[in-house]
Amino acid sequence: MIDYILRIDCPDEKGLVHKITGVLFFNNLNVERTDEFVDSENQHFFMRVAFSGNCDPEKIEDGLRGILPNKANINLSKKQVKDVVILVTKEHHCLSDLLVRNEFKDLPFNILAVIGNHETLRSLTERFGIPFHYLPAKGTDQAARMAHEAQIHALLQQYAFDYLVLAKFMRVLTPDFTKQYTGKTINIHHSFLPAFVGANPYRQAYERGVKIIGATAHFVTDDLDEGPIIYQDVIRVNHTKNAVEMAAAGRDVEKIVLAKALKVVFEDRVFITGNRTIIFE
Amino acid sequence: MIDYILRIDCPDEKGLVHKITGVLFFNNLNVERTDEFVDSENQHFFMRVAFSGNCDPEKIEDGLRGILPNKANINLSKKQVKDVVILVTKEHHCLSDLLVRNEFKDLPFNILAVIGNHETLRSLTERFGIPFHYLPAKGTDQAARMAHEAQIHALLQQYAFDYLVLAKFMRVLTPDFTKQYTGKTINIHHSFLPAFVGANPYRQAYERGVKIIGATAHFVTDDLDEGPIIYQDVIRVNHTKNAVEMAAAGRDVEKIVLAKALKVVFEDRVFITGNRTIIFE
Amino acid sequence: MIDYILRIDCPDEKGLVHKITGVLFFNNLNVERTDEFVDSENQHFFMRVAFSGNCDPEKIEDGLRGILPNKANINLSKKQVKDVVILVTKEHHCLSDLLVRNEFKDLPFNILAVIGNHETLRSLTERFGIPFHYLPAKGTDQAARMAHEAQIHALLQQYAFDYLVLAKFMRVLTPDFTKQYTGKTINIHHSFLPAFVGANPYRQAYERGVKIIGATAHFVTDDLDEGPIIYQDVIRVNHTKNAVEMAAAGRDVEKIVLAKALKVVFEDRVFITGNRTIIFE
Amino acid sequence: MIDYILRIDCPDEKGLVHKITGVLFFNNLNVERTDEFVDSENQHFFMRVAFSGNCDPEKIEDGLRGILPNKANINLSKKQVKDVVILVTKEHHCLSDLLVRNEFKDLPFNILAVIGNHETLRSLTERFGIPFHYLPAKGTDQAARMAHEAQIHALLQQYAFDYLVLAKFMRVLTPDFTKQYTGKTINIHHSFLPAFVGANPYRQAYERGVKIIGATAHFVTDDLDEGPIIYQDVIRVNHTKNAVEMAAAGRDVEKIVLAKALKVVFEDRVFITGNRTIIFE
Repeated sequence: MIDYILRIDCPDEKGLVHKITGVLFFNNLNVERTDEFVDSENQHFFMRVAFSGNCDPEKIEDGLRGILPNKANINLSKKQVKDVVILVTKEHHCLSDLLVRNEFKDLPFNILAVIGNHETLRSLTERFGIPFHYLPAKGTDQAARMAHEAQIHALLQQYAFDYLVLAKFMRVLTPDFTKQYTGKTINIHHSFLPAFVGANPYRQAYERGVKIIGATAHFVTDDLDEGPIIYQDVIRVNHTKNAVEMAAAGRDVEKIVLAKALKVVFEDRVFITGNRTIIFE
Repeated sequence: MIDYILRIDCPDEKGLVHKITGVLFFNNLNVERTDEFVDSENQHFFMRVAFSGNCDPEKIEDGLRGILPNKANINLSKKQVKDVVILVTKEHHCLSDLLVRNEFKDLPFNILAVIGNHETLRSLTERFGIPFHYLPAKGTDQAARMAHEAQIHALLQQYAFDYLVLAKFMRVLTPDFTKQYTGKTINIHHSFLPAFVGANPYRQAYERGVKIIGATAHFVTDDLDEGPIIYQDVIRVNHTKNAVEMAAAGRDVEKIVLAKALKVVFEDRVFITGNRTIIFE
Repeated sequence: MIDYILRIDCPDEKGLVHKITGVLFFNNLNVERTDEFVDSENQHFFMRVAFSGNCDPEKIEDGLRGILPNKANINLSKKQVKDVVILVTKEHHCLSDLLVRNEFKDLPFNILAVIGNHETLRSLTERFGIPFHYLPAKGTDQAARMAHEAQIHALLQQYAFDYLVLAKFMRVLTPDFTKQYTGKTINIHHSFLPAFVGANPYRQAYERGVKIIGATAHFVTDDLDEGPIIYQDVIRVNHTKNAVEMAAAGRDVEKIVLAKALKVVFEDRVFITGNRTIIFE
Repeated sequence: MIDYILRIDCPDEKGLVHKITGVLFFNNLNVERTDEFVDSENQHFFMRVAFSGNCDPEKIEDGLRGILPNKANINLSKKQVKDVVILVTKEHHCLSDLLVRNEFKDLPFNILAVIGNHETLRSLTERFGIPFHYLPAKGTDQAARMAHEAQIHALLQQYAFDYLVLAKFMRVLTPDFTKQYTGKTINIHHSFLPAFVGANPYRQAYERGVKIIGATAHFVTDDLDEGPIIYQDVIRVNHTKNAVEMAAAGRDVEKIVLAKALKVVFEDRVFITGNRTIIFE
């Protein structure tokens, strides 16, 4: 039984594992699993500890501050489901997969609401007892974008969510919007990044004649499709598939890739470091 | 027992399969396997027929000309091993894999010679009884390139090869050179194209933080790493691998991808159409 | 636009492709795609032709009978969605995936009804507007089995279905039942057959310490888990996963494998030959 | 720079990570990477620590004995290449791959000798400067087996090897032989175990009509093909491949699977626990 997940990252120095586990040991906590990694290029230390027992989180954090370098990031989370808001457009496959997983508790999350810039997925969403908010965009010029994002932002204030999931949300979000949810927004991109950034990746893939297509789940940063990658997967295609058929085949990859990425994020297994992720699976 | 491979491509029209197989039937030939595909975007017809029996190839081709559209490409090859020259630099893994396959007849090919711009792989090559030619380059400026390529070209004249294989040949060839061997030159690129075109793809992959790396075998055209893709494969990587370790892990993929691509090419399974390949596996 | 799928299998002889395509050509039909294969061990010929145009199916079949060996199997289907009844127990993941695909027309099928030996999945099913029939079993002895299967059989009479799909139906069906639906019943087995036949394959896999687990979709025959395999896929596991976690990870494979198998079956791409399948993808 | 690999396994108890890393810290050693895992079914603790620095291995082991449970297994190895003897029959693909990796230092091992029960691979082996010993078997009855194994055993006494690698050695070894090298003998089996144990797995796979074939590298125990699995991989096949073609396609999987398994074993990443392996990759 795991009660807490502790994530620490800091500049590397001798004895960190010993000192960190000492704080847990002397608080009578039981370490269930340790994962540790030193990025030797940057001499940076990452550690995840899953432990059980009763503790005062503040006391543990204080104890850790006392033995860690000043710049350490310490994240102690009591294991639990994460609260999530989902943004969608018209395609159902990622949303339906998440709604089913939410209903049957197949992922440690709780969907608070779904926001769509089209109304297409209202019926599906409401069938699972989840509120659906329709926020149509009025255009793609700068003013329309800002107005639309302001609406979304205002609506999001109603929800105490941990993560925002873009489950085939087909509008490009501005940096002004995304920077408010840095490290909390996860997108599924329908290509094997960094191949085929941007619009219509299956068409691009068809025209380039690739033999494998894929999908990428990543954190959203200022740069479109450039954020830290969490999970990717691929499938083989051949000349018999045109761009539309590639897209159809790709949908199954997209939904599984998104679900797998969310699983490791929700289980507190992921560190973001620069534009890369460290994931203790 | 398959004796001949017939490949035909032409603008699509009704009755092609019937007419083509008719020519074979009335010449008393036995069709062992037919693969046919119509690219519906371009209304173009592709067909590969493997057949057995005795025939006069010229008579068959004449018969086919009589029933096919004017622009048809007809390629009738008596099944056989293909003659190959290999270009290398310093890395051994693709070359050693091919030398072993040549020795034990694991691929339908016959290596005539290996040409290296470094001498590193001479001992390995000669150990398998294959001539090794050392043609060092004197620089990377235009004049040096032209001189070097002229040397390679002159040497290649000595060999009646069907295909030129770049098995980790790390110099960029000029269009003047490559255009002489269009459709006959196959390269292994150490990334999952079109991701990470150009130099040091594993370093690029590491910095982008991808979770999957790959390799691509493709025909060489004027544009570096832009030719028609024949085969690709991938492996998973994670944060524990730096760029050097990714490169090491990638080598096994590279050698297998190159061998698989060569297999379908040597078995006359591949059509090039624009920048794509049609492969009947 | 493909209007018809023609599947033929018969003892191999010279000229079959020519003669078959002749029947289509002289009926003014347009072949869109041909796949042909000769099983050389058994000298048996298999051919699938997708064609467009207007035709009298009976006339085509008569024409084909005239030129084919006596024992030929001829199957000419006007391309269409297939009608399906699904059997389930308690696990939702395959059923929910199929319900969603049915709702959004992601597979060429039409779910007529769901039958459960538990009532667990009624709510999910009815939410998608599909009738759910609860037929509980009263035990596992021979009499109980026969009574239960008689009930299922009686209910199935109400539906004009093309295929019966066992989407994690966890009761073993008797040969008396299955033989009534030979070639029409498809099961998803939660292992990489023939490894781990029978009950609790994930527990078996855990105890054997395998590094890859999988799922298998197959036609149901008299022998449990022994029918012709349609599609299989796998995922990597390691020592950190116990049997329960392997089962959780395996569910995503199961649902995708079942959907991919159904796709090729519903698209009339599959021939059953002995205990093997020939699939033209 | 990693100097030592420490592997410990023992019954789990509180504080192990803290105490173990304490011994290293107070000996002024620098932990580069820690991997730890508790098998919760058996309450057993596994830990691998890669560390750098100067130390007296005996002093470290004494220190560890002082803080660990009595039954702890402690293995401290100074990072190095492992010495290996290889047993072969006639098939070259695994041996040639290993000879090339040995020549180019692609695996942390050193091949001391190759022993063949046929002479087929002598030329290949000697070309790489490795001694080849031809020890033909005189039959398959019990007496012939024992005589043959006694010869092999006698020859092995000449070599101070760490691991014995069965690289497609096609004779079944008796428990009397294998028990002398428990935990030191690694075999490559040409199927995805536990499917297709025993002879001719590709023929079995063909007849069962599987859509995926694979290979398995495992430690050899008394029971044929039943030892702890180290690594497995698979490739897709379809109806166009007969048993011989499946075997040909499988060879590339076999050689890569064996090499990957050897890599983790030689890097001291593997624990054997019952019939399973714990591998910290």
